[in-house]
Amino acid sequence: MIDLTDQRRDAAERLRDGILELAEYRDPDRQGWTREVFSAVYRESRNWVARRMAAAGLQVHEDTAGNIVGRLSGTDPNAPALVTGSHTDSVDGGGRFDGVVGVLGALEAVQLLRESGQRLRRDLLVVDFLGEESNAFGLSCLGSRAIAGELTRADLDRQDYRGVSLGRAYRDFGLDPGAVLETRWARAAPLHAFIELHIEQGPTLEQRQLPLGIVTAITGIERLVATFMGSPDHAGTRPMYARKDAMVAAAEAVLSVRREGCGAPNHGVATTTRIESESRSPNVVPSLVRMTSEVRSVDSTWLSGVRGRLAEEILVNARNLGVDVEFDWSTDNTVVHAHSGIHDVAAAAADAIGIPWMPIPSGATHDAVHMAALAPMGMIFVPSKAGKSHCPEEWSDFADIATGVGALAQTLTRLDRTELTPQHQPGPN
Amino acid sequence: MIDLTDQRRDAAERLRDGILELAEYRDPDRQGWTREVFSAVYRESRNWVARRMAAAGLQVHEDTAGNIVGRLSGTDPNAPALVTGSHTDSVDGGGRFDGVVGVLGALEAVQLLRESGQRLRRDLLVVDFLGEESNAFGLSCLGSRAIAGELTRADLDRQDYRGVSLGRAYRDFGLDPGAVLETRWARAAPLHAFIELHIEQGPTLEQRQLPLGIVTAITGIERLVATFMGSPDHAGTRPMYARKDAMVAAAEAVLSVRREGCGAPNHGVATTTRIESESRSPNVVPSLVRMTSEVRSVDSTWLSGVRGRLAEEILVNARNLGVDVEFDWSTDNTVVHAHSGIHDVAAAAADAIGIPWMPIPSGATHDAVHMAALAPMGMIFVPSKAGKSHCPEEWSDFADIATGVGALAQTLTRLDRTELTPQHQPGPN
Repeated sequence: MIDLTDQRRDAAERLRDGILELAEYRDPDRQGWTREVFSAVYRESRNWVARRMAAAGLQVHEDTAGNIVGRLSGTDPNAPALVTGSHTDSVDGGGRFDGVVGVLGALEAVQLLRESGQRLRRDLLVVDFLGEESNAFGLSCLGSRAIAGELTRADLDRQDYRGVSLGRAYRDFGLDPGAVLETRWARAAPLHAFIELHIEQGPTLEQRQLPLGIVTAITGIERLVATFMGSPDHAGTRPMYARKDAMVAAAEAVLSVRREGCGAPNHGVATTTRIESESRSPNVVPSLVRMTSEVRSVDSTWLSGVRGRLAEEILVNARNLGVDVEFDWSTDNTVVHAHSGIHDVAAAAADAIGIPWMPIPSGATHDAVHMAALAPMGMIFVPSKAGKSHCPEEWSDFADIATGVGALAQTLTRLDRTELTPQHQPGPN
Repeated sequence: MIDLTDQRRDAAERLRDGILELAEYRDPDRQGWTREVFSAVYRESRNWVARRMAAAGLQVHEDTAGNIVGRLSGTDPNAPALVTGSHTDSVDGGGRFDGVVGVLGALEAVQLLRESGQRLRRDLLVVDFLGEESNAFGLSCLGSRAIAGELTRADLDRQDYRGVSLGRAYRDFGLDPGAVLETRWARAAPLHAFIELHIEQGPTLEQRQLPLGIVTAITGIERLVATFMGSPDHAGTRPMYARKDAMVAAAEAVLSVRREGCGAPNHGVATTTRIESESRSPNVVPSLVRMTSEVRSVDSTWLSGVRGRLAEEILVNARNLGVDVEFDWSTDNTVVHAHSGIHDVAAAAADAIGIPWMPIPSGATHDAVHMAALAPMGMIFVPSKAGKSHCPEEWSDFADIATGVGALAQTLTRLDRTELTPQHQPGPN
């Protein structure tokens, strides 16, 4: 067993140095710590990550989907490998910890394993997945999606707001889009388990004063683009009673979306992030307005009814204003449950080294969602200060991260020698 | 007196030909009939207008503010001139009649005067004012503003969304910004009266089945840019109860703005045309959202209270959501009353040639607002089909336009020999 307490101060210091050094790779023209997929600064930061992995004693390569993979060879080359890791891209105006903790934390776990003199039976793969955050192409988790064979040829035709396709973006980043589609790891060799260390990105662990969360399930996400179609009339002369104002209909829909989130029985949230009017004129009643919203929950039953409930409420309100609505729904993720075996191993590991923990749902999506298609999956959360994430104020204490790394290392050690049964039918969360 | 009935069919035909010919000058990349100020197609269309004025027998020049001016010399070169005209730019996705009817209608009125063998005592100036519509610089009525000395040096520093200044836009269009500021017509010679023929852009004349409106007052406009400041949190993990969602606060404000317009005692309207979120990410609770709205009325008393009433309601709702608001108000126009003398002359002219009419407020602003600073001002409206304007469906029947032109010619003939007293204190509209 790893003696965590003796090592934790050193680990926290190394983690701080690494996280702050990586944070220097940021888009100077944007707020916060912005490191978006396919950007020049992201390319540079990936070279830094590869060097860091090599320095940690891993054999490093970039796979055909752009994931950076470091391998720590085990004693049995034929045993299915353990996989851990996360991502190092960040959202526009984002922070320094989201994803980064799971990549640099995995390297720190390798260091702990080495210091303890242990050698795993299985190969351990540390992965920095390409482009986990939502991007201008509307597709998150590019790297883990490709690994899982869940990236499609049609996805390559998705366009950003400038009309550039995802395929073109891959090519400009130095990746062959055809090869990206063919990456699927499962064809190469089966994997034993995937476990991802991540910041909570919510306030629950801090509020409960607990240093560790062991994830039960990852939220499903329903995305909506609603298009409101009214009548473009002169904003000065058209009487209020005779308008078909698409902006007003969209505003009512924003409030409907919020009410829907507030009514969720378990963890559920609903957010409208954009309202765009087609017209540039300040003198025209808006006639074509697009609303971009999302609803998330770990409660599949509730989430499955969202489309119907929201569409009905939004439509009734809009029609009262003489406005038509078109709904374009997409399921970004269905609810994915953690493998109960991994959950149990992680819980036993935390108990064994004296770390208090709680089971916790994940309201954010993660690479783990896609890795769950390839291997039993689990996640470990560390606290986020004030629950803030995707913003410059995002923060996790380095001591807490070091605690999480200790739990990760202990979990990896135990998973190395645990045979996992097929996923049980998950109970309610 | 002009015998309108005999000439009206010919006039309607010439007006149709001219309006449809000018409509061919349109931005091919935008919806409807888009001819925005400073665009290449607008430059071309102005050359067409100048040729058309010359063909109508006017001496044509472009003044230093970019207005195209055609002069029909009267018998007394020392008498203050009559002025009529409007504009030929159009909004993004706009129609073919707004403004155009007042320019080509004025040329048709010149034709009617010529056919009737009359020669006016006063010079008649037909003006195609530069850039009347609101533009990317947030400043409407560029040409008439400059004529009235109401364009300021600070206005030249206004920037469009690309960061181009208004001064630079003038220069690129071939105008010297310094000379634009110095245009002020009043310094050259006093003017006798200004009268503008325009489409109603609202549904009232059509609903009342009347071919003519004589304007009592032009709406005041209060413009608001409200900035909502919340907290940028992860849209998946932040519980609904702990959010400070600037988009939700803005949506509530959109509804407040609408309610304010619906509560106006006289003609009053309120419109939100844009909601912009600063963040590009689909996964972040919006923390910085800007709302662009306007409120209009011909009721100055009601309009003067709008800022206070709206600010209070919006602020209370936003604070309940934990969101701060900054208000940036600007008065685009105060309410401007038509000169009662011109109103009476136009009414007598319409009565004399048997055209039924009604007094009507203008919910749109016009070049006449600024011309009122230089001379007694009046306006004549012709019906708009279904009240539609600033959209491709904008339409006025050519027979109705010819009727309006007849009233305009008759009014000009009468104004030519009417001494106007200083503006009376206007009564309530």
